[in-house]
Parts: sequence; structure tokens; C-alpha cells
Amino acid sequence: MTPLTEPLDVLVVAPHPDDAEISVGGLLLTVKRQGLRTGVVDLTNGEPTPRGSPELRQRETDAATQILQLDWRINLGLPNRSLQHTLEARRQLATVFRCTRPRILLLPYWDVACDLAEAARFWAKLSRTDMPGEPYHPPTVFYYWSIHLRIHPQPAVVFDISDAIEDKLQAVNCYDSQFGHYREFPTPLDDIRDRARYWGWAIHSRYAEPLGSREDIGVKSLREFL
Amino acid sequence: MTPLTEPLDVLVVAPHPDDAEISVGGLLLTVKRQGLRTGVVDLTNGEPTPRGSPELRQRETDAATQILQLDWRINLGLPNRSLQHTLEARRQLATVFRCTRPRILLLPYWDVACDLAEAARFWAKLSRTDMPGEPYHPPTVFYYWSIHLRIHPQPAVVFDISDAIEDKLQAVNCYDSQFGHYREFPTPLDDIRDRARYWGWAIHSRYAEPLGSREDIGVKSLREFL
Amino acid sequence: MTPLTEPLDVLVVAPHPDDAEISVGGLLLTVKRQGLRTGVVDLTNGEPTPRGSPELRQRETDAATQILQLDWRINLGLPNRSLQHTLEARRQLATVFRCTRPRILLLPYWDVACDLAEAARFWAKLSRTDMPGEPYHPPTVFYYWSIHLRIHPQPAVVFDISDAIEDKLQAVNCYDSQFGHYREFPTPLDDIRDRARYWGWAIHSRYAEPLGSREDIGVKSLREFL
Amino acid sequence: MTPLTEPLDVLVVAPHPDDAEISVGGLLLTVKRQGLRTGVVDLTNGEPTPRGSPELRQRETDAATQILQLDWRINLGLPNRSLQHTLEARRQLATVFRCTRPRILLLPYWDVACDLAEAARFWAKLSRTDMPGEPYHPPTVFYYWSIHLRIHPQPAVVFDISDAIEDKLQAVNCYDSQFGHYREFPTPLDDIRDRARYWGWAIHSRYAEPLGSREDIGVKSLREFL
Amino acid sequence: MTPLTEPLDVLVVAPHPDDAEISVGGLLLTVKRQGLRTGVVDLTNGEPTPRGSPELRQRETDAATQILQLDWRINLGLPNRSLQHTLEARRQLATVFRCTRPRILLLPYWDVACDLAEAARFWAKLSRTDMPGEPYHPPTVFYYWSIHLRIHPQPAVVFDISDAIEDKLQAVNCYDSQFGHYREFPTPLDDIRDRARYWGWAIHSRYAEPLGSREDIGVKSLREFL
Amino acid sequence: MTPLTEPLDVLVVAPHPDDAEISVGGLLLTVKRQGLRTGVVDLTNGEPTPRGSPELRQRETDAATQILQLDWRINLGLPNRSLQHTLEARRQLATVFRCTRPRILLLPYWDVACDLAEAARFWAKLSRTDMPGEPYHPPTVFYYWSIHLRIHPQPAVVFDISDAIEDKLQAVNCYDSQFGHYREFPTPLDDIRDRARYWGWAIHSRYAEPLGSREDIGVKSLREFL
Repeated sequence: MTPLTEPLDVLVVAPHPDDAEISVGGLLLTVKRQGLRTGVVDLTNGEPTPRGSPELRQRETDAATQILQLDWRINLGLPNRSLQHTLEARRQLATVFRCTRPRILLLPYWDVACDLAEAARFWAKLSRTDMPGEPYHPPTVFYYWSIHLRIHPQPAVVFDISDAIEDKLQAVNCYDSQFGHYREFPTPLDDIRDRARYWGWAIHSRYAEPLGSREDIGVKSLREFL
Repeated sequence: MTPLTEPLDVLVVAPHPDDAEISVGGLLLTVKRQGLRTGVVDLTNGEPTPRGSPELRQRETDAATQILQLDWRINLGLPNRSLQHTLEARRQLATVFRCTRPRILLLPYWDVACDLAEAARFWAKLSRTDMPGEPYHPPTVFYYWSIHLRIHPQPAVVFDISDAIEDKLQAVNCYDSQFGHYREFPTPLDDIRDRARYWGWAIHSRYAEPLGSREDIGVKSLREFL
Repeated sequence: MTPLTEPLDVLVVAPHPDDAEISVGGLLLTVKRQGLRTGVVDLTNGEPTPRGSPELRQRETDAATQILQLDWRINLGLPNRSLQHTLEARRQLATVFRCTRPRILLLPYWDVACDLAEAARFWAKLSRTDMPGEPYHPPTVFYYWSIHLRIHPQPAVVFDISDAIEDKLQAVNCYDSQFGHYREFPTPLDDIRDRARYWGWAIHSRYAEPLGSREDIGVKSLREFL
Repeated sequence: MTPLTEPLDVLVVAPHPDDAEISVGGLLLTVKRQGLRTGVVDLTNGEPTPRGSPELRQRETDAATQILQLDWRINLGLPNRSLQHTLEARRQLATVFRCTRPRILLLPYWDVACDLAEAARFWAKLSRTDMPGEPYHPPTVFYYWSIHLRIHPQPAVVFDISDAIEDKLQAVNCYDSQFGHYREFPTPLDDIRDRARYWGWAIHSRYAEPLGSREDIGVKSLREFL
Repeated sequence: MTPLTEPLDVLVVAPHPDDAEISVGGLLLTVKRQGLRTGVVDLTNGEPTPRGSPELRQRETDAATQILQLDWRINLGLPNRSLQHTLEARRQLATVFRCTRPRILLLPYWDVACDLAEAARFWAKLSRTDMPGEPYHPPTVFYYWSIHLRIHPQPAVVFDISDAIEDKLQAVNCYDSQFGHYREFPTPLDDIRDRARYWGWAIHSRYAEPLGSREDIGVKSLREFL
Repeated sequence: MTPLTEPLDVLVVAPHPDDAEISVGGLLLTVKRQGLRTGVVDLTNGEPTPRGSPELRQRETDAATQILQLDWRINLGLPNRSLQHTLEARRQLATVFRCTRPRILLLPYWDVACDLAEAARFWAKLSRTDMPGEPYHPPTVFYYWSIHLRIHPQPAVVFDISDAIEDKLQAVNCYDSQFGHYREFPTPLDDIRDRARYWGWAIHSRYAEPLGSREDIGVKSLREFL
């Protein structure tokens, strides 16, 4: 992997293709429109699934990437279903961080992919190592929690995606092998939209996505709250 | 007030008419259909409001009561806007509890009406007092939190209202003076439906209402979880 | 392993023989009497211990199983003291879930056995795999926490075992190699009984066992609270 | 009220006579034996109750005081059932603090008596006031929670009362008008003993009483933990 | 009180003069420099204190106000030491909100002044009332917690005051009657500075002030985190 | 490793040399002066780092050990950067516990070193094993959290290090390869001192170090609080 000429602003680490779309697709769309550079690293290809195949999933991912207008996306090809926190996987992900140099990382909440990504973030800044790229420590981390968990951790911030909800749902819809066969209300698409509605309600808005943080949220102004 | 011949199973204490409908209307409809006896005590008439009047609010309440198929409803006539936890108000509410003898109380979460109701629950069991009715201590209390608070306390149980959502919304809609003039999405009705959708999602269902508890939830079987 | 003809209602995953008895023995007895089908999968044989041996522990387990009236019990023979979350162990446990098809899983709280069981639950539903049995996802999970941890997580529900306390203690007592040599108050048996007393007090009853949950508790009626 | 010649070490504020015995009777007995000076201020006489009278309750209190070997006890005579946080009640209790100068206050957890006592603690240190005694601010506060609440706040410390459990129960037993008529297991006495057993188990001991704190617990050595 | 021609951006409700300076003085200085309009409503004059007088405290307040460069400050003259949540005090404070129309309210954390201010915020939006000014509901509320509480609630945001720390301490120092006589380390000034240092450390900065929130923090961009 | 003739009172498990100094250096100094026997087991040599080398880090560690007046210190030589919870590492650490027999363990909060140490604590008490030393279970565990985490878990106790702060900072300063090159305020040394100041403030003292616990804190007297 060669370092990007221009670093990313936001990089999502996703266990499977479609996780980024489901959990923070609205945020990615919104900040892209605001001028930030966005990217996604999918750890596995998410297959096998009952209706999918690696090739089909790749095409679906390409279509979603198009809608999200991502500046960068890669698939690490780690083993789905058997993802483990190995030193080799850590090294691969750390290399991604060194080569994309994101200012904000978005990680999945509390699972093996999260542990892996946090350790990789630490490794990315190591000197005296043979990993490619320069030492780099992504300064800010937020956590997203996926729709299938049905939990409600306390968010640190709730990101308004009111103007991106339709495109987000369209991006999720690209994964037809995963979502196309549901017929009965509520489908996963219904759940994704309605959960965004709930968090929108929570911040007096229409649609939103919650983000957690282990550290406190520092601000230098009140402009976001005026 | 004279004691009911047949006690209630569930009694909601509501600061204003419409609070019971908004917060636990689906539960009231559902348990009524399951054969329980339900009631509401509204503490105030909720007026003045920009588009309401005491007479209009009363007619709206009557219509909603009809939809909820309540067995009993009363308005204590305490002062809206200036509700305070006085000994006289406590006495009035304790008398309600002695005369309706509910097995389950549903109280608003963490406000002056809640303090008042908890103290009244304690007073209801007093002997050697001149309050009407026999000493009675409602054995179980759950708390509901209203839509305008935009908070997420940890629920003790989430009550499935999938089959009652339409009637619940219709009951809320009776309060035309409060909700009829909203035009822009999301209206309060949207918020009420979508929040019920969120809690439905949380329990793998369609629509639900969350309830809190200060005490632990005791069960004698697993039948609710099979 | 061959699939059961009749699936289980409740399956306990226990790191060692005696963990199921200590933590949820009262629940197993109570729901069995209510007509449910119950089972236990012990991950290891729990040996060596100062006064035990694999053969003795097996005989003790058989006696306790008799008292609990379990419909099914198996020991996976994973290595005690060195239990690790390997893909092979995950596969073994997932196979158990596919073959017993429990509606409710009871898992130990927050340790390696818990991680293993949660991953196995996910694997159990995989299609396109060579694991025996049909894909199956146990729909409900509760967590128990063992007596030696001396912690108090917030329970989701507290299960009334008032009518099963004596038989529970008798089942624990079967493990004479583990508990028979204690002489001084409080013995482990005292601790087990008195902790059940505490949770009984918490729900206005005599004896009870606490259960945690990561997801919210959904209910369709109030009958458990009347 | 005249200031004590020798100040107290520990002072319990109790809404009713018997609250101190039930909640921290073991602690009072234990620290007295260790040489501390102990006292109780009962806010009300706890009457009327079904089987009590002010005179009888006073005699029961005297007997319990004897067993606890208290150095000081007073009853403020505030109205039971209708206790409110008035400025006059605050003044009375602040005067008690100025005149007894306790180093540690034990207050009931989160009720009107607690609010009253916290405000009185603040008032006790006021200069330029006509309250008797010198300004004094009790430096340390712990909170106890009573048996009837059936809640489990996180304790700051759990106090070992293993050697005082029998005398504690005897002190509670003095209140025959309150506890003497219970016949069926578990009686309140059973609950009190078994809850102490639970907290004893929590700290690897026999019996204990939990105490909460709003502030952090500062220590200057590890001697309590060796 | 007559409505301001130009509304405030930020209004602090402070129980006593010096509370605003101690708790959010750095924030007030920082946002003022960023162009916002700031104000403080002191509920009482904070007197009597051992070394203060109403006149002296007023002069000290004037000096601090000068340093903070406030656009508006008023003292409601409510009774210090005996502050209570009366309907009259609520009306006075609601009038302040209607006349200053702040976009952000900063309230003291969890005391009688907080209850009073939250009720006043609600009253401020009432129509059909004889309070002066137009109905207005301050849309955003944050809570500060004062130095004397020694508690650590979870902050919603931590506000960077690195460039305002010296002026903040100078503003606090104006209250010579309150802080001028301390000689021994740590003085209250030391505590105020070092606590700001701690929260600065928490956000990878030099000095900061923590703010809490009951509602979630909504954001429309990531610019504060880049 | 041969068992110590005289066991330790306090043993710190540190991922890298300097972690013990940074996190609990003040505690180690204070309890040593009070007559306890103290020790540290460093799991790795902490190298490579930009300005360090194994030899230099060892000399720095020796100097810090001198200042802390430790009775015992060892380095397990586990791989830095790649520390994993292997059965062999667990065995090594368990052997340390059996040979030093500490009454109190101080472990790092929630990371792989913590998991490793908790499992090693359990293994240390195993009988029927070929590990050297006698079975031993360190009875008490506290957790420290390091300066770089910028989190605020609820401490169980806050240890007063007011009289040891200067020596603590001097011990940290020995690690010149790690801290000597920082020039701009706040340096890590500033952060370490100011964080100790914050926790000192929290307990009405000058400097302190926070400690967490998974179990409740049991006490047998109130002497630490008088």
C-alpha cells in the first residue's frame, strides 16, 4: 500500500461491506458535502451469506461507494466469520492508518474489530518499525453501534443527517443480496430509517446517527449549539 | 369520592390530559383487550394553552377516553403550570388510590407529579386517618417518560404495542387543540409514532412503549420470553 | 452429535459442572416443574481440584442432574484452567446450539466462556457450513453471575425460586468434593442460600436468582406483575 | 439545646425511631466498642402506626438506645407522615449539628429527610446567625438506605458488623410494636439479617452494612485492606 | 424589566455572585472574544459572609463583570441561605429569560437554583400570561458544577479555555472578601486553576471547563473535532 | 524464581517500566514509609522507543527503583508492542505471585495486561501444578489507570500522596529517554502532577492517586475517615 498524496479526514473501519453504510452512511454523505475527504476500510468481504457471493457483494459495494462519494475504499480480505485479533491483521490495519492518515476514525462498538482497530491505531504511530508509511496516530476516535445489536449506549454526539437520509437508504439498498428479499414490515431498511428518526427526535431534528466516545468531547466554541 | 366496587388493574397518573395517551396509550389499549381494568387520573386540566380551553380540552379528553376504552377517568383539578407537592394534593391523590385500588401504578418519570404520586402511594396505606376508603398500598409501580423530554433512561421492560399503535395515535389525535396545527415533518404525532417504532425495534417487534422501575423486576416464569 | 427430536426450552452454558447448579439451579427446577425442557452444557470437567477427580466429579454431576430433572446434559471436555476462545471450541458449542435448539440461553457473565458462547450463538445460524444440524439462532439470552465474583450487576429480571430453594441447595450439595469440607460459617452453601435470600427480598419474595441482559426486556402483557 | 462538652464522632439522622437501628445499628455498636462517641437524632416519633403509640415508641426507643450504648439521642418532634423541608426544621437540625459537632454524619438516602439534613449541614457552619453554638461543618457524610426501599445503590464502603449482628437484631427487636406481630417467613427481622448477610458475603465476611457517598473516599494508608 | 434590544447568546444563572466566574468564567471570556453576547443573572447577593457585605460584594462583582466583559448582568435579590423554589421567584427568573432571550442557558448542577431555573425556562414560553416580554423558550441548556461539590459528573462537552485562564482567575480574584484571606496551599484559587488543568488534560489541551447536559448533544458537522 | 523469605505487602503489575511510577508512584512511596514491603513486576522492557534503548531504560528503571525504595522489582521480558495473553505469560506471572505472595495487587485498568494478571492471580492458587512456590491467591486487587488514557472511571478509593508528590515526580523524571525532551507546557510531567492535584482536590487534600475496584470496599472501622 502506498501513502495517499492527500490524507483522509474521516475513515470508517467496517467488519463487513454494508456496515459503514448502515451505521454512518448519513454522516459520510454529509461531511463529504461539507468538503471533507472520506474513506472506508472493510475488514472482510462479508461472505458467504445465503444470497450473496464475493463477486456480487463487491459489485454492491461499488455501487454504494458511488452513492457515498467516498474518496477511498479498500477491503483487507480478512476471514469473515472467523475474524480474530492477530498481530498480522493488526499490522495490515495499522498500515492503512499510516497510508491514509485520517483525522477522525469511526470504529465499530465493542467487538473484535474494535479491539483490532484500537491496537492498530496504537501501532500506526510506532517508529523503528518496517511498516510502510510514516508514524501516524489518528487523533480522534468515535464509535458507532450497528443496527443488529439493539442496544443504546450513551452517545457522545448525535450527528444530524436530515439532508442525507434518502441517499443513505439508497446506499444501503445497493446491498440487494442482503436486504432485497425482506417483505414484511419492519424490514431492515425500516429499522435503519426509524432508528435514524429516533436519534433525530433526540436532537430536535429529523434524522441522525449516534456516535460514542471513550474520551471527553472537547470544544473550542459554542457555534455547533447556536 | 366513593370506592369503586371493582378495583382497577392499572392506573395512570398524568400531569395533563393527553400525557397518558402519548406515553402509555398503547399499553392501556393492549391490556384492556387482554381483560384488565384500566384508569387514568389527570392531575390538571392542562390549560391555558394557545389553542385550547378547559371546555374544549374536556371534550377532547372524553373522545380519547372512548378510544382507550378506559374503565375510569377523573381530573383532580390541581393548578396547571403551578403544580406543587402540597399535603392537600397528596391527600387527594392518596384518596384516589384508596378508592380505585390499582394493582399497577404508572407514574411520570422524575418530576413534581412523580414525587407527589409516590408520597400519595405511601399515604394511601395509612391507618388511623380520616381519608375515605380502606388503607391500600399499590404494590407495583412503573414509570413512563414523556415525548418532550428527549431522554433515554434504561427501561425495566419494553411493552409491545404493535397491535395498538393505530388506535393509540387516534387517541392522541383527539387532542386537536394541541396537535392539529402542526404541518411540518416531524410533527408531534410523527415523533410519537417513530419513538414507538424505535422501542419496537429494540425488542424485535414493530411498536413498543418503554417503562422504568426503581425496584427490580421479579418474575415467576419465563413464559413472557418464550 | 445428533439433533434432539424435541428441542430444549432453556439451555445453560456452564464453565464447570456445578456452575449451573450454583447460579441458576433454582430457575432450572422451577421452569421444569412448569413444563419446560431444560439442559446444561458443561464446557470442562472442572478438574483437577484439591479433593476432586474426573470420575468423582462425573458421579457428582450425575446426582445433581437427577435432582434438577434435566432433559439433557453434556460435557464438551474443553481444557479446564486453560479454557480459550478457539475456533474449534466455538464450532463445538455452535453444534450444541444447532442440535438442541434452545429458545433461551443462560450464559455466564463476562468471561471467556461468555465470549465463546456468544460467538457460538452467532455461528449456530450460519448457512453454507459443514456443521451438523440446521441453522439456528437462539432468540433470547440471559446472563447469570456466579457466587465467587461478589459483584452486583443490574439484573434485567429476578427469578423467584422460593419453592425450589431446598432442591437447589441439595443439587449443589451433590458436589461433595467441592463443598463438603467447609466447616466454618459462612460456607459456600451459606453464601449461595443467603445470596438467593437477598434477591428474594429484592422482589418481595423468599428466594430468587438474578439474571442480566444486554438487550431490553420485551413483554406482551402485564400478567407477570399482577 | 446546649453544646455537648465532648463532641460526637458519629451522628445518625433518622426519619423515625428504629431507622438508625435497622440501617446502621451494627456500625454504631462496632465503632462504640472501638471507642468512638455515637449519637442519633430522630426527626419524628414515627407515630401513629397500627400497633404503636408515642409513649410505647418512646419506651422501645429507650431500650434500643441502651443496647446500642449511644452517648446521645434526641427526638426533634417534627411531624411524622408530613415531614417537610421547612426553614424552621432546617434550623433545628443545624442547631443539633452545632451542638454535637459530629465528625461523621450518617444520613438517609435520597429523601426529604436527606435534603433537610444536607441543607442543615450547610447552615450549621454559618457565621453571623443567631443559632446557638459555634459554626461547625460536619466534615464527612455517608448515606444509608433503608430495608424497605429494595434498591442497590453502589456502596462507597461496606462496613463489617460480623461481631455486632446479634446485638443489632436485639436492638431492632426492641420495637415490638413495629415488628413483634410478624409470623411468616420472611419477617422484617429476617430481611434485616439476610440483607446484612449479603453485604457480608460481598466483602468476604459474615455480616455488613453498606454506606454510600457523594464524594470520593480518601484514604491515607492501606491498613484497612491488609 | 424591559426586553433587551439585542438578545443574549449565553446567559448564566448563578446562585451567588462569583459562581459564574468560578465555574464558567473561562467560557464567558472565550465566547465573548468570539463575538457572542454574554450575560449573568445572580439570584442572591451571597451575603452575609464572614468578611463580606452587600456593598463590598457589589463592588467586587462590578470589577469581575468588567474583566468578563459581560454584555448584561443583574441580581435578582432573592434571599441567600434561604433560597427556595417559590412561584414568585420562578416568575422573576422567567421574566429574565423573556427579556434577554438567550440561545444557551448555563445552569448550576442539581440544586434548588437549578430546579428553579428549569421551571422558569418552561414558564418563559407561556402564552396567555401577564409576564412582560414575549413568550420565549431558551433552546439549549448546559449545566456547570461548582468547585465546592467535589464531584465528577460525566460532562457532555469540555470547553477549552486555554487562552482565557489568566483572565478567569483574575475575575475570581476580584472577590477579595471571599478568597483574599487564604494563605495555605491549596487555596480556592489553586483548586480552581488545577481543576481547569485537569479538564484541559482530559481534552489534550491546557485548561478547560466541563459542562453537562440532560439531552444529547446534536452536531451538524465535525469541524469542532478536526 | 525462588520464593521470597518475606512476602510483599503491595505488588504492582506494570506493562512497561515507568507505568508504576506514573500511576501509583506516590502510593508506593507512602506505604513504604508506613512500613509496608513493596514491589513491581514490569511485564516488558518498553522498548523500542524513539529515544530509548533496553540498556538505557534499565538504568533509568534502576534509578527510579532507588527513589521508590522498592523491596523487589523484576522484568518478565515479555514482548513489548505485541504483548498477548498467552498461557506461558500467564504461568510466568502466576509464578511471580506465588513467590512474592503480595497481600494487595495493583493492576492496570482494562487492557490485555489486566486480563493476563487476573488470570494469573487465579492460576497462582492452583494446587496439583508444577509451578514453583506454594498455592497463593492475592486477596485484594485495586486497579490504576494510566495518564495517557484520559478517562475518569469511578474510583473506589483515592489515595492521599501529598507528602510523596515530589519524590514521585523525581522517580518519573528518571525516565529521561521518555520525558526529558518535552519543552512545551503541558509536558507529561505537568499532566502527571496536575492530575494528582485534581484527585487531591477531590478528597480535600493536596495530591492523590485514584484506584478502582471490581469488588466492594470492606472496612472494619471508621478510623480512615476521622
